[in-house]
Formats: sequence, structure tokens, C-alpha cells
Amino acid sequence: QDLAKTAGKDAKVVLDNTRVRVIELNMAPGDRTGMHSHGDNIVVFVSGGEAEQTMADGTTKAMSRKPGEVVWSGPVTHDTLNKGKTPVRTLVIELKDNGK
Amino acid sequence: QDLAKTAGKDAKVVLDNTRVRVIELNMAPGDRTGMHSHGDNIVVFVSGGEAEQTMADGTTKAMSRKPGEVVWSGPVTHDTLNKGKTPVRTLVIELKDNGK
Repeated sequence: QDLAKTAGKDAKVVLDNTRVRVIELNMAPGDRTGMHSHGDNIVVFVSGGEAEQTMADGTTKAMSRKPGEVVWSGPVTHDTLNKGKTPVRTLVIELKDNGK
Repeated sequence: QDLAKTAGKDAKVVLDNTRVRVIELNMAPGDRTGMHSHGDNIVVFVSGGEAEQTMADGTTKAMSRKPGEVVWSGPVTHDTLNKGKTPVRTLVIELKDNGK
């Protein structure tokens, strides 16, 4: 499932070319991305916050991020909830496969 | 020339793996990156500001960026000056060649 679709109005594709796609996410408190999958990706936390991620197997994990944090992830399927009391703005930078 | 070296204390490598390198740049007014080269890259403007870029051929161009802007660039050689009155913080995301 594509984050740019599952997150609905919270997601905006700001860059898309042969090597990367960048999605800006603006999540109000209580918003969820919906269950989605990425390949290799980087998340930049423009604002920080508290999140809860539900993985494909139903397990959950809590995360706390500071403004300016940069987080690498390999391929993953998850659903992210903004658990904090403030909006969270992130940039999700999806790396494409370069024809590999 | 490697930005992480030419920019000296203004540059901090925050992520480096087989696919990407991410450099956090914190430039005070008047700071320069020094002349450097990148392959394909994305710049995220955490804070906005006014910059002047000097290209390898000596020509210059002015840029104005807003907080949260995401800018794609193909391979380039340039030197960037913070021309504004405020510090500018950016993340430079350099894409590696994936063995191409």
C-alpha cells in the first residue's frame, strides 16, 4: 500500500523522479497514516513528536523524535499514529531501486 | 571536493550507508560551504534563507528558500554563501550510485 494514498489528505508528494519520491506528511494529533509499505527510506522530522507504530504482525512500538532528526529505514510495512498533543510534520524520502 | 570537508565545522554527517549520505549544515550569516561537488542530491531547508551560489565556471546565482522546501539537484559543483542575516540549517541528502 502506498503511503501517498493511505495517508489521504495528510500526505503531499513534493518531489518524484527516477531516483526518489518525497512525501510531506502533516499529521494532526490522533491522525494515522494507514498501513503502508516502503522500500529503503529516510524520514526527516521537521517537527518532533510522539508516535506509535503498528507493524504488519500487529505488534506496536512507541517512538519519540526531536525536530531535525533523520532516521534511516530498510523495507518495512507499518501504520503510524500521532500519539502526541501537537501536529507532526515529516518528510518521507523513498529511495527507488535504480533498476536493480 | 567533499562538502563534509570543505564546509568544516558547519557540516556534520548524520547518516552514511551504502545508499545515502546525509550532511547537516548549519551556516551562520556570511559562512561559505567552500567549492564542492555532489552527485544526485536533495536539499531540505529546515530553516529558510537567502543564498548565493558560485558555480565552477565563476558565475553566481541568488536563491531564496522557505523553511520546509525540498530541492532536487543532479550532479553539480558549487560554493554556497549564506547571504542572509540569519543562520540557515539544511540537510543535504547525497544519493550514492548503487554500484551503477
